[in-house]
Amino acid sequence: MSVSVMKSAVQVTGDRQGVVNTRTTSARNDEGVLERTREAIKEARLEAFIVVSYANVLYLSGTAFLSQRALRDRLAIVLVTVEGPPIFIIEATEAEQARDESWIPDRRAYVQFVEDPLALLASAMRERQLDSCRVGFEELSLSAQHYIDLRDLLPHVTLVAAERLLESVRSVKTPRERELLISGALATDHAMWRAFEDVRPGQSEREVGDRMIDFAREAGGVFKHLVLATGKNAWASHHFPDETRIAPGDLLRVDFGMTWNGYVSDLARTAVVAPPRSDQLDLLRRLEELHHDLIKAVQPGVRACDIYRFCVDECARRGLDFPLPHVGHGLGLSIESVHEPPVLRPTDDTEIVPGMLLVVEPMLVGRDGRYAVEDLIEVTTSGPVIRSRSRDWSEPLVLGD
Amino acid sequence: MSVSVMKSAVQVTGDRQGVVNTRTTSARNDEGVLERTREAIKEARLEAFIVVSYANVLYLSGTAFLSQRALRDRLAIVLVTVEGPPIFIIEATEAEQARDESWIPDRRAYVQFVEDPLALLASAMRERQLDSCRVGFEELSLSAQHYIDLRDLLPHVTLVAAERLLESVRSVKTPRERELLISGALATDHAMWRAFEDVRPGQSEREVGDRMIDFAREAGGVFKHLVLATGKNAWASHHFPDETRIAPGDLLRVDFGMTWNGYVSDLARTAVVAPPRSDQLDLLRRLEELHHDLIKAVQPGVRACDIYRFCVDECARRGLDFPLPHVGHGLGLSIESVHEPPVLRPTDDTEIVPGMLLVVEPMLVGRDGRYAVEDLIEVTTSGPVIRSRSRDWSEPLVLGD
Repeated sequence: MSVSVMKSAVQVTGDRQGVVNTRTTSARNDEGVLERTREAIKEARLEAFIVVSYANVLYLSGTAFLSQRALRDRLAIVLVTVEGPPIFIIEATEAEQARDESWIPDRRAYVQFVEDPLALLASAMRERQLDSCRVGFEELSLSAQHYIDLRDLLPHVTLVAAERLLESVRSVKTPRERELLISGALATDHAMWRAFEDVRPGQSEREVGDRMIDFAREAGGVFKHLVLATGKNAWASHHFPDETRIAPGDLLRVDFGMTWNGYVSDLARTAVVAPPRSDQLDLLRRLEELHHDLIKAVQPGVRACDIYRFCVDECARRGLDFPLPHVGHGLGLSIESVHEPPVLRPTDDTEIVPGMLLVVEPMLVGRDGRYAVEDLIEVTTSGPVIRSRSRDWSEPLVLGD
Repeated sequence: MSVSVMKSAVQVTGDRQGVVNTRTTSARNDEGVLERTREAIKEARLEAFIVVSYANVLYLSGTAFLSQRALRDRLAIVLVTVEGPPIFIIEATEAEQARDESWIPDRRAYVQFVEDPLALLASAMRERQLDSCRVGFEELSLSAQHYIDLRDLLPHVTLVAAERLLESVRSVKTPRERELLISGALATDHAMWRAFEDVRPGQSEREVGDRMIDFAREAGGVFKHLVLATGKNAWASHHFPDETRIAPGDLLRVDFGMTWNGYVSDLARTAVVAPPRSDQLDLLRRLEELHHDLIKAVQPGVRACDIYRFCVDECARRGLDFPLPHVGHGLGLSIESVHEPPVLRPTDDTEIVPGMLLVVEPMLVGRDGRYAVEDLIEVTTSGPVIRSRSRDWSEPLVLGD
């Protein structure tokens, strides 16, 4: 087993032309994602799939509607069928965007509150003679109400909970997706590093966080999430930066993510504000060691749950307290549910295969709070490669020195 | 019918101390929200309510988990009962935050992927003898899978789709909520205005949008959404700012929102880059006129659908093209579904009552795209009051002059 760390320079400069596309959410069908999805549907002995989630609609139609993330009741639906082209059901207000962005020519618009998008879907399914067969749906993205409505509208259809199927297709990235995930991760890493360089005692968490967000945006990203905790805030898992002043000797833990051409980044770093205590340096070293051992375990052929089990066993063996229900996850277009398969948790038996990109994120509990690190890993035929380090983070980082 | 416009100065200055709390999401129970919710549940002849949505969990527990918005399968549940105190079910990783923030003492933690939060809920309901009664749930926030699981776990419970009930409780704001919504709206308006002042031809949409986001953050807000469209992008409803260069004579339409102590703001403004054409100025004046007439119609006692109908009729009478399925909505803690009741749409018969705060947002279609304006309105016993104008926007705004 081997692991290599690519220490590439971040490719992002101040040249705005170079980052034109990083903020525009888009997907492309020229890499055959629709065909791969159709194959997976066929293999699962389904005749069609009803797609409503933001990430899957984007993946399969090329269009990401803001309203889909902000208006739960304004449905956009892609009906993917084993035979014949897909059908895209959209709200009339979004027709211009769909026309400009989507590769699906068969678009059917409804007027919200006047027409029922699910009735429109049901009639499209009858038209295709799909009203008495097995059809997949996204059981975690579809709401209870829309599920009940679908059952009523299509009483002879067998609705099969199969969200995982689409997520599995998405878990192996296309060359373009790989490139976007890696460049987004490197830009995120670089923004974290730049913000860390300026940390001084007396600054507020908010000030440090704001700089990080600025650097990410300068690089071309769109801010997604930020956990930034110092002092006693480091006990909570997901502390949002506030006016807490950074003090000498504080732990500083960051979990930061943006979207980069629609693709999610998600990285974590932990540092100590000078002067560091020996127990802090020691735990940071042990965390980095554990992290590398975990990454080495992300080999083609192993199962996601094996990596989680390995982490729990290793922590027990090393006398470390491991507080998380998972230790990594795939990621991609999903903003509502950042943890995409494979999820490195006790119950996910997905086989790790080349072409997957996922984050590994161990967390340990020290005397002064939670310590975390998170990196993007590419699974290649010759093993895992760290893809999110624009600099060397392997030594404990002491800030404000 | 009367309408007054409050032209208050924005209360936000460069003094960071003054904005300490604007970024921290929180809710407070000292204004009796739990008691009001319990009353509403009782009135609907329900014995309890199973709450899972981000906004309602925050409203009823005082805690907003980042993971609830980013991890669809990490459930946080508040069980509100007519008799006895509420029960709060959380994932173990979030225990520290819940301890620090929540006013619910009965908290029960589960370990994700090992324990089932819905099984924990079912056992809590059996403990309270609630396993064979009528229980409300959020039919648009609960996923199909969790709904199916609940039915299996609690076969004798009658699950009643009643998300609207909780939203109705939230639609009438407490004094503190009112203050946060108004100060957040004024700060958002001020940020838009400041960014507009600097607009010059040749700048990119992105540059203008970035400044707006910066000003909002300076004031203490957390960025939520931004639509910023110029030139031909003004045809799409929800264009995200990109590298498009602003040209003389362009339409510039913005729809911008942030969160302010957890509360959502949502405003829209449309301007013209000099030199303006007469058809642009004319449509901007007609839009502002229509907007004021609509606001005047938001009187206590009328129904939400009446205001929508009034808008459609007025547009027809004035020869204007009205392209939206709604013309305004309540707002508050919900980020996943920004349109809270009342929604000014053809099918919402909610009665407008004093204490509601909502946005009115007409849109018109001109020769060069969509024109929009959106303001926060407070419904008082003596009529509607505009609460989101930190300056006078009533004359057509010409930028870069």
